[in-house]
Amino acid sequence: MSKKLTKRNEDYSKWYNELVVKADLAENSAVRGCMVIKPYGYAIWEKMQAQLDRMFKETGHQNAYFPLFVPKSLFEAEEKNAEGFAKECAVVTHYRLQSDPDKPGKLRVDPQARLEEELVVRPTSEAIIWNTYKNWIQSYRDLPLLINQWANVVRWEMRTRLFLRTAEFLWQEGHTAHATKEEAVAETEQMNDVYADFVENFMAIPVIKGVKTESERFAGAVETYCIEALMQDGKALQAGTSHFLGQNFAKAFDVKFASKEGKQEYVWATSWGVSTRLMGALIMTHSDDNGLVLPPNLAPIQVVVVPIYKGEEQLRQISEVANKLVKDLRAVGISVKYDDRDTHKPGFKFNEYELKGVPVRIAIGPKDLEKGTVEMARRDTFEKQFIERDEVVDTVKALLEEIQQSLWQQALRFRDEHITEVNSFEEFKEILEDTGGFVSAHWDGTAETEEKIKELTKATIRCIPLNAKEEAGIDVYSGKPSKQRVLFAKAY
Amino acid sequence: MSKKLTKRNEDYSKWYNELVVKADLAENSAVRGCMVIKPYGYAIWEKMQAQLDRMFKETGHQNAYFPLFVPKSLFEAEEKNAEGFAKECAVVTHYRLQSDPDKPGKLRVDPQARLEEELVVRPTSEAIIWNTYKNWIQSYRDLPLLINQWANVVRWEMRTRLFLRTAEFLWQEGHTAHATKEEAVAETEQMNDVYADFVENFMAIPVIKGVKTESERFAGAVETYCIEALMQDGKALQAGTSHFLGQNFAKAFDVKFASKEGKQEYVWATSWGVSTRLMGALIMTHSDDNGLVLPPNLAPIQVVVVPIYKGEEQLRQISEVANKLVKDLRAVGISVKYDDRDTHKPGFKFNEYELKGVPVRIAIGPKDLEKGTVEMARRDTFEKQFIERDEVVDTVKALLEEIQQSLWQQALRFRDEHITEVNSFEEFKEILEDTGGFVSAHWDGTAETEEKIKELTKATIRCIPLNAKEEAGIDVYSGKPSKQRVLFAKAY
Repeated sequence: MSKKLTKRNEDYSKWYNELVVKADLAENSAVRGCMVIKPYGYAIWEKMQAQLDRMFKETGHQNAYFPLFVPKSLFEAEEKNAEGFAKECAVVTHYRLQSDPDKPGKLRVDPQARLEEELVVRPTSEAIIWNTYKNWIQSYRDLPLLINQWANVVRWEMRTRLFLRTAEFLWQEGHTAHATKEEAVAETEQMNDVYADFVENFMAIPVIKGVKTESERFAGAVETYCIEALMQDGKALQAGTSHFLGQNFAKAFDVKFASKEGKQEYVWATSWGVSTRLMGALIMTHSDDNGLVLPPNLAPIQVVVVPIYKGEEQLRQISEVANKLVKDLRAVGISVKYDDRDTHKPGFKFNEYELKGVPVRIAIGPKDLEKGTVEMARRDTFEKQFIERDEVVDTVKALLEEIQQSLWQQALRFRDEHITEVNSFEEFKEILEDTGGFVSAHWDGTAETEEKIKELTKATIRCIPLNAKEEAGIDVYSGKPSKQRVLFAKAY
Repeated sequence: MSKKLTKRNEDYSKWYNELVVKADLAENSAVRGCMVIKPYGYAIWEKMQAQLDRMFKETGHQNAYFPLFVPKSLFEAEEKNAEGFAKECAVVTHYRLQSDPDKPGKLRVDPQARLEEELVVRPTSEAIIWNTYKNWIQSYRDLPLLINQWANVVRWEMRTRLFLRTAEFLWQEGHTAHATKEEAVAETEQMNDVYADFVENFMAIPVIKGVKTESERFAGAVETYCIEALMQDGKALQAGTSHFLGQNFAKAFDVKFASKEGKQEYVWATSWGVSTRLMGALIMTHSDDNGLVLPPNLAPIQVVVVPIYKGEEQLRQISEVANKLVKDLRAVGISVKYDDRDTHKPGFKFNEYELKGVPVRIAIGPKDLEKGTVEMARRDTFEKQFIERDEVVDTVKALLEEIQQSLWQQALRFRDEHITEVNSFEEFKEILEDTGGFVSAHWDGTAETEEKIKELTKATIRCIPLNAKEEAGIDVYSGKPSKQRVLFAKAY
């Protein structure tokens, strides 16, 4: 397979699809819409998981595990939630295969092994979890209940794309129960803030915090908070959501608690999740025509060391120096790979690590041996410098921090340059087509206008930003009065 | 719910079921045979995962993720494997629900949304993984391929028990590909050794390493290595298995590689796994009539501090001392909980932490304040001692190590006392009924005898121990000649 990528300005979508495969992140599987996450891609996901898990635990949450399957009768209990996901449900109807009498060596579903009640493969776990919480919650002393689950979920999507929209994906889903509305709303906001903190400070992806309009809300939620990121092609990507569920699930599953005053009250709920979709956001925020660019925080290999040599004796000498460097770098917690494969030339290796987004590359050749130097190159800017050998550790440490910062600044600049205020529908359409990005426009607050604009432009309201100031104006499409601007964009 | 447990010698099985629920480890869910792993149980599983994951990575393995579903045509490709699991397969046949026209507000499976090909929910992932490896392996340079997956799997068992046998369970499954038979066998043995090392040195559970007889082998394997543990009731429990798969899957999925000499050869395979079943082994090795007993390595809370006080002022004074201790213990990496809940009495708390197996309990009362001491109790022996406050950290550190060792020694003694050599079938049955445990007996090597003994005694051959010496003898049942003793037992 050629390592050459399509250029972003030729075909962004093709560039993305190629990059995901060529950088060994993921690939399509034999199961329609389901992906295989390859070791290199999974290693990045593990870094995300580890950091998020720490942040969840620091905010008082514990992990647990609930069943993959949801009996249909539970699934349909919260009607809006059920209605929202019904069209995407994979359904288990049988529990046994048997030899196919018509085809020797083949199997068929055993018609005798039909389940009395069908099982839905969880598209999200509110139903099964709230049915469980019913038994866990009796009194205000049992609250709050702050639980997270790392799991796979299945939503039968018709059009899928690696990481961005797959039938099966990996995620975490937090499900909390509270005694009061205020506490539940505070939890919803806190977890949206945790997501923003993680995505901005760990992944170097700027986001806008906001709430969804009613039509974009999670099925079964009273309010959906979200963080919205902007990709290089000017399309928005919803990076995480945190839902205030009110008492909807408590009522559907009859979950009540005895308050301090001894009254029976319905419990208040939240749920919140981020998924392997974040891998897509990562790729489309930082990468370039040469391949993946990874913030050092997420790089499975932060530094690669490549020897440039002729003959075994030179390799031996270089390896001695390289192994010492590797040891010193590991000692300060930096992940390093020394690639001394003799089956590939240095140029091949350089391209490979460029494609895979390794932040720092160190090359050591015979001249470096003489001079006591190494050549150090950074992936994001391609800048090279020669460094004294005993300055490598300090330089790499500083450089990794600088790259993390620099990627953040670059993404922030791009994002900020792509928020455009418009005051007419003509302008709205022009900006959307020419510049792309977020269009900040007045909206009259009706689902009709929202729908009409979507029909005409494919742009949706990504969010009503939390930091938006009240500002009287008129809706760009309907001309009706509006109280504030919202952010529109085409979206993934 | 009463915290009182059934005693082990009254009804071991009932004791186990009660303990799992009362110690907040897991419970049955609304889905037949599927469990909810509660936060306290999950925290123990996370500790196992973290340690195993480290050990897998240290032996060169990487994590990846493969689809939950296996198309039926792939599933049936390796016939023995397919035949072995066909009876336990949950099958997805449809991908959509719709409103039920006959029952307003209810859903039904949309008959129009039938899948062209049914999807099996993975009972194990050889099929989907080897279908993927086909594209990853072309040359000897691509080998070995050393991959592990943390995942949920589903096996539709008719009789289920929490952790021991559940329809859905969590596990890891390693799947490796090698250029030679020798290398694949070495990998199979290495991973069985990794499991033994983990289970013995981390979980304090002694195991016997061996290989399975043909009839107990993994479906599709050439050889199944295993580690077998012994529970307190004298029944064996298979704690982990590592399979040498030969070229069976390579042939079924046509996975060949170009050797160094340029020849096309089939790839050699292994797979190996341990699951949440290990939680059952943990419980049934160390726990007692008062509840769970946890080796400190696996305890989510290693030390609990309980204040004994009257009135707020006393609590304030005790808390000052307690908080300092908590800080000092955490500083050396010990996980501590300070339980100053005012809703429960000390006696209640003592019972709760006993039930949950917290290894060390520290109580601080007004007299301790005066004397500058604390009362320290260990969970495993119930021994108590008074300790000077400034000796707490060192004492706890030493005590945790001692408890880990002591549990290991106790389990080892029990296990060794329950391996009995027998030389007649009368003796065989007597030992099995009276003492239980492993019965070491001569076996003629035939499946018929193995089956007959199972029929008559319910005992199966747990393994042919790797360290067994050759020893001529006669089969205890058939009287035919035998070359070595094997271990029989009743098993979970």
